[in-house]
Amino acid sequence: MSSASYALNLWYQAGWSEELAVGGSLARTIAEIPVLFFRRSDDSLSALLDRCPHRFAPLSKGCVENDVVQCGYHGLVFDHEGQCVENPYGPVLKSMRVPAYPVVERHDAIWVWLGDAAMADPADIRDLSFIDDTPETAKFRGYLHSKANYQLLNDNILDLYHTGYLHADSIGGLFPETVMAAEETDDRVKVSWTSENVPSNATFRARGGASDRMDQRVEVIWSKPGVMTLDATEVAAGATVNFEDHIVALHSMTPETPTTSHYFYCATRRYDMDNAGMTELIRSLATKAFVDEDKPMLEAQQQRVGEADFWELKPLLLPIDKAAVLARRKLEKLIAAEDGGR
Amino acid sequence: MSSASYALNLWYQAGWSEELAVGGSLARTIAEIPVLFFRRSDDSLSALLDRCPHRFAPLSKGCVENDVVQCGYHGLVFDHEGQCVENPYGPVLKSMRVPAYPVVERHDAIWVWLGDAAMADPADIRDLSFIDDTPETAKFRGYLHSKANYQLLNDNILDLYHTGYLHADSIGGLFPETVMAAEETDDRVKVSWTSENVPSNATFRARGGASDRMDQRVEVIWSKPGVMTLDATEVAAGATVNFEDHIVALHSMTPETPTTSHYFYCATRRYDMDNAGMTELIRSLATKAFVDEDKPMLEAQQQRVGEADFWELKPLLLPIDKAAVLARRKLEKLIAAEDGGR
Amino acid sequence: MSSASYALNLWYQAGWSEELAVGGSLARTIAEIPVLFFRRSDDSLSALLDRCPHRFAPLSKGCVENDVVQCGYHGLVFDHEGQCVENPYGPVLKSMRVPAYPVVERHDAIWVWLGDAAMADPADIRDLSFIDDTPETAKFRGYLHSKANYQLLNDNILDLYHTGYLHADSIGGLFPETVMAAEETDDRVKVSWTSENVPSNATFRARGGASDRMDQRVEVIWSKPGVMTLDATEVAAGATVNFEDHIVALHSMTPETPTTSHYFYCATRRYDMDNAGMTELIRSLATKAFVDEDKPMLEAQQQRVGEADFWELKPLLLPIDKAAVLARRKLEKLIAAEDGGR
Repeated sequence: MSSASYALNLWYQAGWSEELAVGGSLARTIAEIPVLFFRRSDDSLSALLDRCPHRFAPLSKGCVENDVVQCGYHGLVFDHEGQCVENPYGPVLKSMRVPAYPVVERHDAIWVWLGDAAMADPADIRDLSFIDDTPETAKFRGYLHSKANYQLLNDNILDLYHTGYLHADSIGGLFPETVMAAEETDDRVKVSWTSENVPSNATFRARGGASDRMDQRVEVIWSKPGVMTLDATEVAAGATVNFEDHIVALHSMTPETPTTSHYFYCATRRYDMDNAGMTELIRSLATKAFVDEDKPMLEAQQQRVGEADFWELKPLLLPIDKAAVLARRKLEKLIAAEDGGR
Repeated sequence: MSSASYALNLWYQAGWSEELAVGGSLARTIAEIPVLFFRRSDDSLSALLDRCPHRFAPLSKGCVENDVVQCGYHGLVFDHEGQCVENPYGPVLKSMRVPAYPVVERHDAIWVWLGDAAMADPADIRDLSFIDDTPETAKFRGYLHSKANYQLLNDNILDLYHTGYLHADSIGGLFPETVMAAEETDDRVKVSWTSENVPSNATFRARGGASDRMDQRVEVIWSKPGVMTLDATEVAAGATVNFEDHIVALHSMTPETPTTSHYFYCATRRYDMDNAGMTELIRSLATKAFVDEDKPMLEAQQQRVGEADFWELKPLLLPIDKAAVLARRKLEKLIAAEDGGR
Repeated sequence: MSSASYALNLWYQAGWSEELAVGGSLARTIAEIPVLFFRRSDDSLSALLDRCPHRFAPLSKGCVENDVVQCGYHGLVFDHEGQCVENPYGPVLKSMRVPAYPVVERHDAIWVWLGDAAMADPADIRDLSFIDDTPETAKFRGYLHSKANYQLLNDNILDLYHTGYLHADSIGGLFPETVMAAEETDDRVKVSWTSENVPSNATFRARGGASDRMDQRVEVIWSKPGVMTLDATEVAAGATVNFEDHIVALHSMTPETPTTSHYFYCATRRYDMDNAGMTELIRSLATKAFVDEDKPMLEAQQQRVGEADFWELKPLLLPIDKAAVLARRKLEKLIAAEDGGR
């Protein structure tokens, strides 16, 4: 199965809400489909194929105004559903259309459905209400473009043992004693790493942790295509874990092309929530790890994989890969099912 | 039919005469064939495959002197007909040849024939004597390299309604009232846009037009592969159009590769003909429109079309596309006929 | 036969010894295989596939320490034979391996065998003891990356008549009177250029040659894949050639990809051997010729050849190409034999 296949009947994260002001637009290619997103005056979103049906100029080189987009080349105007509403050269026909895609805003994020629109149900968008429930001063969002396949990005979050090596000198990582557990349900993969009574680390102490030993737990829950929540707690060894001890993050991977991806992340915390300075500190540490450590490693990995199918290269599977493999298998099943249906 | 096919039995514009001084040379790839042009001491031109038959070094990396070209790698010398005339390592044989192409200079331009030389008749070069008839002070020539297929560049000139949108803020364009008429003959496509009693525009007033209303007419005549004359007049509404009212331009598109082209243009005028300053003014306005407006739009269009066949993308055809479609059909017939003959 | 085929059962020069300090490492792709070289504490070398068998991260992005390499992504450790010796996540199994390649150091150079290891015999490495026999003050080594196929680089050294043209203004070249002789044995191609009683040149005079006329002889001996010794003498016309008159150089070409190569060179001399300043002078002259003259010409040649098979372009063969053709035929036979054996 080629890495150039994508499941289309699912919600892809296309961006962050803040990327689209009223009247604003955003051009982003997802699963090799160029899409133009824009925000209408009633605050709702629209997503159209970013290619005028007339001569194929990108609509994103035109102009969004009054909730419609006008092609910059010949002036055809399309509404938010892709219907042509103005043809300077003759009558407007029903057949003058550009494909429109279901698009929904949830949890500060933009979600688009590129497959069969009849199947698009916003209820299928993963519940990420921890984002909504966190004030701006206690969360940050980010976006990275990566020259690696999105499944390599998924693998990276589903196997956090890498943190002990790749991030040893920055945000730090898991411990030799860390115990992993992975399981799957119908549509999720859950993996956790538990470290009991390990030496306290920098992030624990930064929060004011006084103990020399701590308990650490990190849990990642994956759902298609690459929506992963990461819930981490660090408390004094033996202490009870309370609600405010959780740091919860979203890592969300969206394919652009077979060898490039969009990486969206959002981290929230429940302590010291008014401290925007603390948020900036964490943001800069995390961004450094993502940009200076993960990104070059994953892009180098992509270089070595090249155009090859991942499995044909016969990776040496380790127990730590269990969650990543489960997620890959689920995606492959989805893609195969859609291929069969075509 | 792939966009990588070219008709070869026709004259391609390869450059402007001024690009080749006596003894000078010019390397340019046309229809994926690298060609070396040089000017001999009797002012005539030569066009050779820019690839030494010995070890395939580009002859353009060698030296043109005394009407012959010497390969810079091993010193073989070829004359203007491609015949080897000096072999430092042994006898010169008739078989030591590099392909030479018929090349002719007409209307300030260089024309090359890459197909069957026996069919090459300079009489088939389009009559563009309006260029010769215009003094240097009243014309300007230019060259642009474009990362778009030459047929997209043809389309752009054959459908000037785009000027009302793409060039609205620069050179301006046609009017909503403008009436188009397109027709074809055996080897030409003629299209005109007529606007009667429309508001005077900037170019009309720049010429000293005092009336508030004007009549405008633009006529483009296409011939293969992308030689297009553009004849424009703007006069006071109801006035007679005189000889000196015409601005006549050449837009000439030559394929380099399936996704890149050479764009040659020359504009002439018949009023205020000694005013070189006016020429510079028009040149800078036109160049801005070509470079800052047309070029990015056409290259973005090419990005969206990619490697696909134009027709397979099922363009939404409008009446305004008639001339462009007629020209495309003529080119496709030519290419198919040559393919059949191979 | 595609230029993308390589013989693998032979020794490829991978670098110069000086590129690898103890504990140091070097990542270089040879015949499209990414290889990580490192030097162990006992001064011996190791060569591993530069791709972790686990998730395919380049091992070169990890860390070499204590004679083993640790992957920078998940921390697996491999010894110099490619055996995993540390698995942070479970037992170490025999099957946890990365391919290792025989690697040998000879004549200041690193040699790697990418084919069947059972066939690798260091005795097959070409005897280049002239390098060992020359003190550092009388030799220099260099490396160039070239965007041309290694066989074009071979051709360049096997046909030195090009020096009279490409290097006429720098290091100078052969003479019109020069007589070539080429012959082959089982595994070598030997070609010589002899010029008797020709005008003295700059290099002859630089050595203090007082005569107006000189005898010049250059001999190149090729062995697979692109190991070429170049032995040159220039003496007063009619004089005896002595041991110290020889300048002996290595030109060694190693494929990286079908269109890129590694070019290693080393020049030694036997006169004025303590004069390091003279060495620097020669180095700078030679480097200029290689970098400013050979490299652009060969890369332009590669551009013209493109993806095509060299022979399908039907090169015009001249007598001067005899040695280059003999070497190409030998390589093609080797590649065909290995292909047949697969």
